[in-house]
Amino acid sequence: MAQRSDERTLGVVAPQRFIDDADFELQCGETLNGFEIVFETYGTLNEARSNAVLVCHALSGNHHAAGHHSAQDVKPGWWDACIGPGKAIDTERFFVVSLNNLGGCDGSTGPTSVDPRTGHVFGPEFPAVTVKDWVRSQTRLADHLNIERFAAVVGGSLGGMQAMQWAIDYPERLNAAVLIACAAKLSAQNIAFNEIARQAIMTDPEYRNGNYSIENTNPKHGLGLARMIGHVTYLSDHGMGQKFGREVKSGDVSQARDVEFQVESYLRYKGQSFSKRFDANTYLLMTRALDFFDPAGDYEDDLVATFKHVQAKFLVLSFTTDWRFATDRSAEIVDALIAAGKNVVSATIESEHGHDSFLQPIPRYIAVFRAYMNQLAAEAGRAS
Amino acid sequence: MAQRSDERTLGVVAPQRFIDDADFELQCGETLNGFEIVFETYGTLNEARSNAVLVCHALSGNHHAAGHHSAQDVKPGWWDACIGPGKAIDTERFFVVSLNNLGGCDGSTGPTSVDPRTGHVFGPEFPAVTVKDWVRSQTRLADHLNIERFAAVVGGSLGGMQAMQWAIDYPERLNAAVLIACAAKLSAQNIAFNEIARQAIMTDPEYRNGNYSIENTNPKHGLGLARMIGHVTYLSDHGMGQKFGREVKSGDVSQARDVEFQVESYLRYKGQSFSKRFDANTYLLMTRALDFFDPAGDYEDDLVATFKHVQAKFLVLSFTTDWRFATDRSAEIVDALIAAGKNVVSATIESEHGHDSFLQPIPRYIAVFRAYMNQLAAEAGRAS
Repeated sequence: MAQRSDERTLGVVAPQRFIDDADFELQCGETLNGFEIVFETYGTLNEARSNAVLVCHALSGNHHAAGHHSAQDVKPGWWDACIGPGKAIDTERFFVVSLNNLGGCDGSTGPTSVDPRTGHVFGPEFPAVTVKDWVRSQTRLADHLNIERFAAVVGGSLGGMQAMQWAIDYPERLNAAVLIACAAKLSAQNIAFNEIARQAIMTDPEYRNGNYSIENTNPKHGLGLARMIGHVTYLSDHGMGQKFGREVKSGDVSQARDVEFQVESYLRYKGQSFSKRFDANTYLLMTRALDFFDPAGDYEDDLVATFKHVQAKFLVLSFTTDWRFATDRSAEIVDALIAAGKNVVSATIESEHGHDSFLQPIPRYIAVFRAYMNQLAAEAGRAS
Repeated sequence: MAQRSDERTLGVVAPQRFIDDADFELQCGETLNGFEIVFETYGTLNEARSNAVLVCHALSGNHHAAGHHSAQDVKPGWWDACIGPGKAIDTERFFVVSLNNLGGCDGSTGPTSVDPRTGHVFGPEFPAVTVKDWVRSQTRLADHLNIERFAAVVGGSLGGMQAMQWAIDYPERLNAAVLIACAAKLSAQNIAFNEIARQAIMTDPEYRNGNYSIENTNPKHGLGLARMIGHVTYLSDHGMGQKFGREVKSGDVSQARDVEFQVESYLRYKGQSFSKRFDANTYLLMTRALDFFDPAGDYEDDLVATFKHVQAKFLVLSFTTDWRFATDRSAEIVDALIAAGKNVVSATIESEHGHDSFLQPIPRYIAVFRAYMNQLAAEAGRAS
């Protein structure tokens, strides 16, 4: 395998495929006749099979969390800041499993897959999936890999919600849950932004009720807009000010003519590039899974009761300028865990990067995250 | 005139029209061959002509700020909470002038007007207007009404920016400026939300490069989306939580099926009703005027220097949960006014209503606002 000169990167990694032929009943009542999950692994599983870490992705993430797909590949996986040799999730100590969720559009069974029952692409007919469904499908992958118990299930944002659901639904199958920049459920404002993104997609005439693939259209404007909306909520007002301010890319503000601010051109670029790589039906499905997430809903809205049977220990991290899932949303989780008598460590990290902070190599974030993970590695025993 | 039983409302009011035949050169260099402005007045101008208050509207406002248009009219003007007999702007003491800005779509010359030079609707050819242009056009209206000096120029949000520009550009023509929930310029995040709204409109295929009126189309989806985006930024996370929480309108979240949250249905309704009453080109023009507003830009970005020649006294109000123009944006204005040696009173009002607070009858807000205005009325002398 080609290795990059920087010893702190993983080098070249390759996706693998897990095929489950068994029927899989979803929370919505519909059944998938089997499913496929694409995943990557980094590091080595120890003999005791006790050093596995499951990484769960957020809204638009996928299985490619770290390393590069070829020696020429310029862009590393989405969480390369945190996964690799010597990094917060140290691949010299852990066996990391990272997957593309069910319903995704990067290789796992989802709206862009062919429905074996019809021979056509699922498209808008792909059933709703929930965080609970994801977690259960991830236990199938764990079974396939012969991992009875994870040293940790880890994620940021929607990924953190999956880690939380793991601890609730499979208390005996993880030693620790790491919840970063997440919340126990979405607020009305969170749902509102998701709904605007969905409306942007669904009112794009090229969306064709989700049948754009068959009809050979492309709701790229709607998907681009959805991403622009999301992107603004990932950044902080202050961070955007630092990065763009009122810098003008072209035109003359004092003349009020043909002005384009840097932030406008940046956002449009972000929207356009996203619409080329992502699937609109998948975006709808992912935002719906976010909206529906509410584990305390099964416990009469009592988050303390929700955590009562949890066995995992918790690390809960949040960021000062994150206004999508603000620090007090993490505090709710921490308070409920403490009230439920659980082992929880938490930190609020100073950062200008808003919700996006969980993807950034912020020194204190990495230090706290690494220290916690290293303790877990010590408990799991060093990988051979 | 029909009067409502509630003695605190103005009763029925009627719009008036001001036609200016003279050429009007705009900041962008283009010239309008005259213009019309629709306006309303409430109360009586005193003999000294010293008790006039100019009310400036925000993004989607118009001349109809208070009272009703008929005895059957259910909905009062947009600032009826603050304008009327005994209210913060007491129409028994003040002569209130409220107009639809140049470039608007409620009767003043704007994109929906006919260009006298071509005989066609201006549409996208209507030139860019700025806050400076608005203020200058408002001086023409003041001249027409024989008002040499306003007791106050008052506004919230973009309206507050006009009041600020009045104090800077026409120091001798106002006794006081009341700036509510505004900022000295937009942040990158503010511009970003405006740009997303514009993209929603401009990528709607029915927008037709702005010629939807001639082509008999209607970019209603884009305009509705733009309003939904704006609306979320007008409310606070907490306020939306109080109002909607995660209340479900239909469907079953635990089944993840056909779920519609209350907040989704509310936002869609708001978007749809707005798209029926507002003009897309006007929305673009208004958001651009917001983006371009930056009076300190003419003074090497020195806000203190910008205020140096101001003669007006100031009231500056902001609201705790306003995240569109947060309290620290008002504090910047107040600090600069103090540093420039000006007379400024300010208050930060506790409110759950976010940016929308300036439209709400919040007791402390009304009390502070009224007390200040009553002082100005005393200075102006009681209206006869």
